[in-house]
Amino acid sequence: MIIRPATIEDIPQILALIRELAAYERDPLAVEATEADLLREGFGPSPRFFTLMAEVSGEVAGFALYFFNFSTWKGRSGIHLEDLFVRPQFRGLGIGKKLLCSVAEAALANGCGRLQWDVLDWNQPAIDFYEGLGAKFLNEWRIMRVSDEALASLAAAGGSHE
Amino acid sequence: MIIRPATIEDIPQILALIRELAAYERDPLAVEATEADLLREGFGPSPRFFTLMAEVSGEVAGFALYFFNFSTWKGRSGIHLEDLFVRPQFRGLGIGKKLLCSVAEAALANGCGRLQWDVLDWNQPAIDFYEGLGAKFLNEWRIMRVSDEALASLAAAGGSHE
Repeated sequence: MIIRPATIEDIPQILALIRELAAYERDPLAVEATEADLLREGFGPSPRFFTLMAEVSGEVAGFALYFFNFSTWKGRSGIHLEDLFVRPQFRGLGIGKKLLCSVAEAALANGCGRLQWDVLDWNQPAIDFYEGLGAKFLNEWRIMRVSDEALASLAAAGGSHE
Repeated sequence: MIIRPATIEDIPQILALIRELAAYERDPLAVEATEADLLREGFGPSPRFFTLMAEVSGEVAGFALYFFNFSTWKGRSGIHLEDLFVRPQFRGLGIGKKLLCSVAEAALANGCGRLQWDVLDWNQPAIDFYEGLGAKFLNEWRIMRVSDEALASLAAAGGSHE
């Protein structure tokens, strides 16, 4: 098993993995991203995200995709793990753990004191897996979002600033 | 009322606001950040975060601090609003809304289709405020985190990669 940083040549596989993860998360049509989006956002001079690929005998088995966030309490960056996925036929080999450990290594290497991610509340196998590796729920916190039309309305509601 | 991007001169006020927000969130001793941290992470050539200051009659009334994230489904960046705070003596003037609208404008200006943040589940005034502006809970998702010693253990558990 090899864990390695993704290169531009991996983009088609990364997009395929993103789609497979969305299908697993019961939202297979949710992926609007294109290869051009991943190239532009992830492989330019200041990438918005970073990707690790897991390979077994030369085949792509899974991936982890993360970006940096910032904690105003800690005064330093942390890592937000956006996607972690192992293809079904490669499960049970410890690949998910190896990917997560590698992201933790990236966190330490970048001076980050925190690694966090969001988990679906019905995904008990994932929750068990993460808790077994020392992760804890942030119990008091919930996620809110404004998207698309609601976002445009909110921006328009601000009017001029001065 | 003025909403404007923060400059290096605002760093002492930003740190003061971060501490006031932590106190409101019932964790007043949680702030380890220093002025040097904010300078290094937020005001260098590739800043990890961005800050908007709200002023009323020349006095700092509140702030919003955000950074960019990345959605693998959308294939583009979004904004994560890390902190939004209005000092108690300036509440009821619409400053919080104006700050949030300005962050929404920054999202649109940067091609982002999403703006999101985390809210404390007991902070009903904040939840009501956000829902009134079109925000929705991501009901299925929960936040997990590995910090400090647990993060170091996780990184160490990976061993060598190949």
